Amino acid sequence: MTASQFLDLPSPYTLRRGGSLHGARLAYETWGTLNASASNAILILTGLSPSAHAASSTADPQQGWWEAMLGKGKAIDSERWFVICVNSLGSCKGSTGPASINPESGRVYRLDFPELTLEDVAESARHVLEHLGIKRLAGLIGPSMGGMSALAFAVMFPGVAQNLVLISTAPYSLPFATAIRSLQRESIRRDPNWNGGNYADSHWPEQGFRTARKLGMISYRSAAEWRDRFGRKRLNTRPEQPFEREFEIEAYLEAQADRFVGSFDPNSYLYLSRAMDWFDLSDHGGAVEIALARMQARRALVIGVSTDILFPIEQQREIAEGLRNGGTVVDYFPLPSIQGHDAFLVDFERFSPLVGNFLGSL
Amino acid sequence: MTASQFLDLPSPYTLRRGGSLHGARLAYETWGTLNASASNAILILTGLSPSAHAASSTADPQQGWWEAMLGKGKAIDSERWFVICVNSLGSCKGSTGPASINPESGRVYRLDFPELTLEDVAESARHVLEHLGIKRLAGLIGPSMGGMSALAFAVMFPGVAQNLVLISTAPYSLPFATAIRSLQRESIRRDPNWNGGNYADSHWPEQGFRTARKLGMISYRSAAEWRDRFGRKRLNTRPEQPFEREFEIEAYLEAQADRFVGSFDPNSYLYLSRAMDWFDLSDHGGAVEIALARMQARRALVIGVSTDILFPIEQQREIAEGLRNGGTVVDYFPLPSIQGHDAFLVDFERFSPLVGNFLGSL
Repeated sequence: MTASQFLDLPSPYTLRRGGSLHGARLAYETWGTLNASASNAILILTGLSPSAHAASSTADPQQGWWEAMLGKGKAIDSERWFVICVNSLGSCKGSTGPASINPESGRVYRLDFPELTLEDVAESARHVLEHLGIKRLAGLIGPSMGGMSALAFAVMFPGVAQNLVLISTAPYSLPFATAIRSLQRESIRRDPNWNGGNYADSHWPEQGFRTARKLGMISYRSAAEWRDRFGRKRLNTRPEQPFEREFEIEAYLEAQADRFVGSFDPNSYLYLSRAMDWFDLSDHGGAVEIALARMQARRALVIGVSTDILFPIEQQREIAEGLRNGGTVVDYFPLPSIQGHDAFLVDFERFSPLVGNFLGSL
Repeated sequence: MTASQFLDLPSPYTLRRGGSLHGARLAYETWGTLNASASNAILILTGLSPSAHAASSTADPQQGWWEAMLGKGKAIDSERWFVICVNSLGSCKGSTGPASINPESGRVYRLDFPELTLEDVAESARHVLEHLGIKRLAGLIGPSMGGMSALAFAVMFPGVAQNLVLISTAPYSLPFATAIRSLQRESIRRDPNWNGGNYADSHWPEQGFRTARKLGMISYRSAAEWRDRFGRKRLNTRPEQPFEREFEIEAYLEAQADRFVGSFDPNSYLYLSRAMDWFDLSDHGGAVEIALARMQARRALVIGVSTDILFPIEQQREIAEGLRNGGTVVDYFPLPSIQGHDAFLVDFERFSPLVGNFLGSL
């Protein structure tokens, strides 16, 4: 059972770097009711891996990836707002991506999928709004990669998003983040099963993908959290083979890899990961400051986390200051959450009131 | 041409976890002259990968890995001190390790090399001192893994090292560091060429080792350094294949991997990396504080770097405070170097005067 709805994008659909898609579609979900003036819409753009299923609904009672934040009476209150969450173009959770069938060849796209940017992710999401009769967004919310897509949206369609909620994101990828993503992509590509992207369903590049996920977890959490949570705790079992895992932290990474592998398409991962490294807000106007000053948002909530090594707090400050310089009223909260980049997925005690108060004050 | 000298360890040589070696030896180098009372000796224990060739000498004029720090008139002044640097047991730079021939079988040890700890690295280095007629060390210097080995030495042989210089090291591995090392080891082990440790000389697990080295570099440097140094600079060439490198940071990691692969034995890497994760000073007396209080050093210089994510500044403070509680007079310097863990190998402007002044004041 899914609550996903699908929007057919114009065909052909031309992407920013020149490629085009035929018969492409986007998966999205909605919560709440659009009011008569279509003035209560909030769009959520997601991080790299989530689907459009941000929260449960009558149509799909399964817990969503932001269940604690979205629903009746929650921070993103579906009694007041009409909330839309779009699965990114290029993903594999219903929207067209490298794992979709290319109607021109009748075969899975794989690396024939055209080069994808976060501007394409943002621009395609705009079509969902048009389809729903929404000209302006009361709010545009983007955590992590979703925040980069939201920044792309805001600079390409100035004034459409009246209020922004940008969480643990970046106006461009820094070399430390690129180094990690590059190594993740390399791990996938070097897996013999990857086979230039032409892996069989029975032979996914599982090992490389596991390494990529583990490296991801190392960059998503913080040393301080793991110190508290795992310390030097050992597993009860001794390794059967030399150099196998002995510490709880190692079993944790293994379990995270178990959960992820098989649930996300490795080629989709490559495309979206690269899109993040390509993203640079200064492509829009020559400088990050210029781009941020163009967005014409009334207000913005910018939240960052001091222990985030992937989207560091300095980048949140840069976003907040740039928006302010452009005349947006900005609430900026650098949080001391211990969970690093992933804090927005776990530290609801801090995130929930901040987002709830901001949206409540609109 | 090498300046290495070799010491035959007692045979059999029993290791802490029960295994033993036959006909094992250690490679070491010396600089300066031991005085008549053998009271001017300084021992350097190294990080994971360096050889005993810390600096050039008449016997070997090649630049050493700590050339800027060691020599006549330098911070570690070979005109005053008799300096010894030992290649760690288990390494592949002259000392016996997994890449050495096992005299019992006539074949390379590989994974038949016994389980190795940093206590073994420390204890074996003690034999070099005995051989040279040195009962006490004026100074014991250990950066990174060498600092862990130095702490092991100091707690096993209280009072032998009269003064300690501990740089960017740790009294035990934290889970963040273990996560990175575990993933590095896994990358090597998952390379099909690793073959359970039995790789042919013509087929090293090069790809896995490259990934391990790149991950190492990500943890050795800092995001701030890379931001200044690389920013978003792109390479002049476009990638020939999709997802190949485009940014200078990616080429930098590649060059680092090029330099490392072929120069260090992957099995040695596994053994020493695991030894770091196993290391826990609290094994000596039940608590880190107790162990530190036992060392009976007169003075200690403890240096850490605020941007070090692998051996974080908190661990340097923990060492400094523990030594102080044991009666050692401690100079503690948390440095703002931008180069992260590797600062001791590059930021000589800061490190050189601190080490020089400390040793000069003895």
